[in-house]
Amino acid sequence: MTAYKDRSREELLQEKSVLEEKFKEVKAKGLKLDMSRGKPSAAQLDLAMGMMDVLNSETDLKCSEGVDCRNYGVLDGIREAKELLADMTEVSPDNIIIYGNSSLNIMYDTVSRSMTHGVMGSTPWCKLEKVKFLCPVPGYDRHFTITEHFGIEMINIPMTPDGPDMDLVEKYVNNDPAVKGIWCVPKYSNPQGSTYSDETVRRFARLNPAAEDFRIYWDNAYGIHHLYDDKQDNLVEILMECKKEGHPDMVYKFCSTSKVSFPGSGVAAIGTSKANLEYIKKQMAMQTIGHDKLNQLRHVRFFKDIHGMVQHMRKHAEILRPKFETVLNCLKHELGGLEIGNWIEPRGGYFISFDALPGCAKDIVAKAKEAGLVMTGAGATFPYGKDPQDSNIRIAPSYPTPEELAIATDIFVLSVKLVSIDKILENK
Amino acid sequence: MTAYKDRSREELLQEKSVLEEKFKEVKAKGLKLDMSRGKPSAAQLDLAMGMMDVLNSETDLKCSEGVDCRNYGVLDGIREAKELLADMTEVSPDNIIIYGNSSLNIMYDTVSRSMTHGVMGSTPWCKLEKVKFLCPVPGYDRHFTITEHFGIEMINIPMTPDGPDMDLVEKYVNNDPAVKGIWCVPKYSNPQGSTYSDETVRRFARLNPAAEDFRIYWDNAYGIHHLYDDKQDNLVEILMECKKEGHPDMVYKFCSTSKVSFPGSGVAAIGTSKANLEYIKKQMAMQTIGHDKLNQLRHVRFFKDIHGMVQHMRKHAEILRPKFETVLNCLKHELGGLEIGNWIEPRGGYFISFDALPGCAKDIVAKAKEAGLVMTGAGATFPYGKDPQDSNIRIAPSYPTPEELAIATDIFVLSVKLVSIDKILENK
Repeated sequence: MTAYKDRSREELLQEKSVLEEKFKEVKAKGLKLDMSRGKPSAAQLDLAMGMMDVLNSETDLKCSEGVDCRNYGVLDGIREAKELLADMTEVSPDNIIIYGNSSLNIMYDTVSRSMTHGVMGSTPWCKLEKVKFLCPVPGYDRHFTITEHFGIEMINIPMTPDGPDMDLVEKYVNNDPAVKGIWCVPKYSNPQGSTYSDETVRRFARLNPAAEDFRIYWDNAYGIHHLYDDKQDNLVEILMECKKEGHPDMVYKFCSTSKVSFPGSGVAAIGTSKANLEYIKKQMAMQTIGHDKLNQLRHVRFFKDIHGMVQHMRKHAEILRPKFETVLNCLKHELGGLEIGNWIEPRGGYFISFDALPGCAKDIVAKAKEAGLVMTGAGATFPYGKDPQDSNIRIAPSYPTPEELAIATDIFVLSVKLVSIDKILENK
Repeated sequence: MTAYKDRSREELLQEKSVLEEKFKEVKAKGLKLDMSRGKPSAAQLDLAMGMMDVLNSETDLKCSEGVDCRNYGVLDGIREAKELLADMTEVSPDNIIIYGNSSLNIMYDTVSRSMTHGVMGSTPWCKLEKVKFLCPVPGYDRHFTITEHFGIEMINIPMTPDGPDMDLVEKYVNNDPAVKGIWCVPKYSNPQGSTYSDETVRRFARLNPAAEDFRIYWDNAYGIHHLYDDKQDNLVEILMECKKEGHPDMVYKFCSTSKVSFPGSGVAAIGTSKANLEYIKKQMAMQTIGHDKLNQLRHVRFFKDIHGMVQHMRKHAEILRPKFETVLNCLKHELGGLEIGNWIEPRGGYFISFDALPGCAKDIVAKAKEAGLVMTGAGATFPYGKDPQDSNIRIAPSYPTPEELAIATDIFVLSVKLVSIDKILENK
């Protein structure tokens, strides 16, 4: 197909009128479609329905340590839940704390605690002139809203196919003591679906932070969320790498079962060094008497162990894979060769990242909405909601049914084409 | 019985040697008993085992608003859970947010948010020279550790049979802009088991705080935790009183089902004005995508409504009442007339508050421990763990079995007698 930029004004106007006709048709259907959030579909949730049966009124509700999970006690998680989530995030059970239902909440609490109490004895961040976080972009909007909420200055770090631009990361972290953290989604990243290379992880572990209270916020949200059995990304385990490099306390790993069992009713955890854990537990002891042990037990009794969880994730993949392929095939078929957008074919995670022509993302999202398709807001993948290129759009294919998804992708592709033609015509 | 203070030195020494013999006997048994925490017994937890069956793999898991409770969505609680907990805490469902499993966690988060972001636009407390909280004493240790953790200065306010000394409360709140809060357990208070009088609640509502961001932290932990059907305390509903007096935003009400269903696996809530709720929800939206809706649904399907919950609490009372009566009868029988201690006979809640002769509490708790009985640490009911009189001891009769409780109370009474005799002998 001839690239749009190489077509004449007349050819483009001709193409536009054909596309407008199609768009009118689909708009007339009055559809309501949603590709905005990384939300599992009902079919995926059905996979875990057995979890509703594993505990009943006849069940022994004591955990392996003999504690009655119905009562108070056990601040940092029952042993078997620690083992399961430690395996999930590839650390020792001695390096983990089990929290409530949300890893986002752990991240929020971690930043909040650093604001009021510092990190392992450092000055509370609220007493400092300036606190900065590095933000690989595009990235996860909810990370950025946490740091924005606390008045932390966010610095964009461009993502490469190997992860964040490590030259820049090293420059900032190793020289500026105001840089206290970096937000990372290291595997099947949000939104690119790409995985940090071995070299990137090792360069992270070798950082020499100017700030003693600098930490890597390693949100391994999609660690076991593969789409394929035969094509899987591998991520070097960072806690051990940091230990090897003499920086055992430099990383917080976050994970949860939100997209394994039930979003909102899963179990979340932090994995980090024992020194960090001890410091965190001191504060936790004031915050709560303990998290929901029955739900921890429910998860362990259902999945049994990491092998059970991995098998369960294969079932998720069977539902998700065709959805990703529907979108990717449509993008390839409809946009291939037009040179009006780039995208990455992910092997896992929840998203497809699409880069439109500069200055087109907002208009594309608005156009799609006209036809009843809600996308993630353009700019959401950047700190302060500002994409300097107005180019990135996050596609979330998980929630719609396959039929809805085919229509949704058609609308998206039509919107991309129409907005791109207008943009190119401006400069003809 | 002749009061110890009126007995001769010889009579006291004679009594002491008899008591020491008894103490030796019980100590020889090598018992391990615990009256330290307000922890429900296994028999009480058994009452809610039906809750493990109400949701199963065949259940419709949509809430009344049609939302699939297994998925993301609904930040502030499903409608039917709001209705149940609103009834429990006597506010409108429009005045409530449902959180996770712990009201303590809500209180912690509320103080933490005020530190970093202030209250509805006020200066963040971490930017202030000095922040103070009023602490009715004796009170709940975990309240005091929260304020201590954030470096908030705590001011003791003596409790009277009608609640906190309101002359003092008014003096501080209405004149000192550094006073930002007061910790209250207004009904079946921890540890006294007494309830604020109507006049006390009205005086709270009529406060004219010097600080715009002053709030009453109303921890109604035992609102429906009656011991008797025929003798029940009544507490005036404070949110409405504050509204009537033109201070609609002045109170946060906290409640949870921790001692209704399962501690650690219950549902907690905050009830307050819509203006406060809006402010809180803005922050909540950054902290979490939502709490555990399945557990909210589980609670509503099990209790059905407030009537169901009240009936359920009658079953708790049937288990707790004889335990309280065992302790109270023993205190009356063994200590009555000796003038070595005072206590209140509560009609609800989880505790009996015992005031020993000044300077005796620590020694009594240590003595009891010698014989294998763990009590709440003396001083724990005061800010910074410092009881200026060294007099107050909190008795928690809920956890031991009735048989254990009879022995535990014997040990306690023996310890009180022995330590008191020594104290009186010092001055003879």
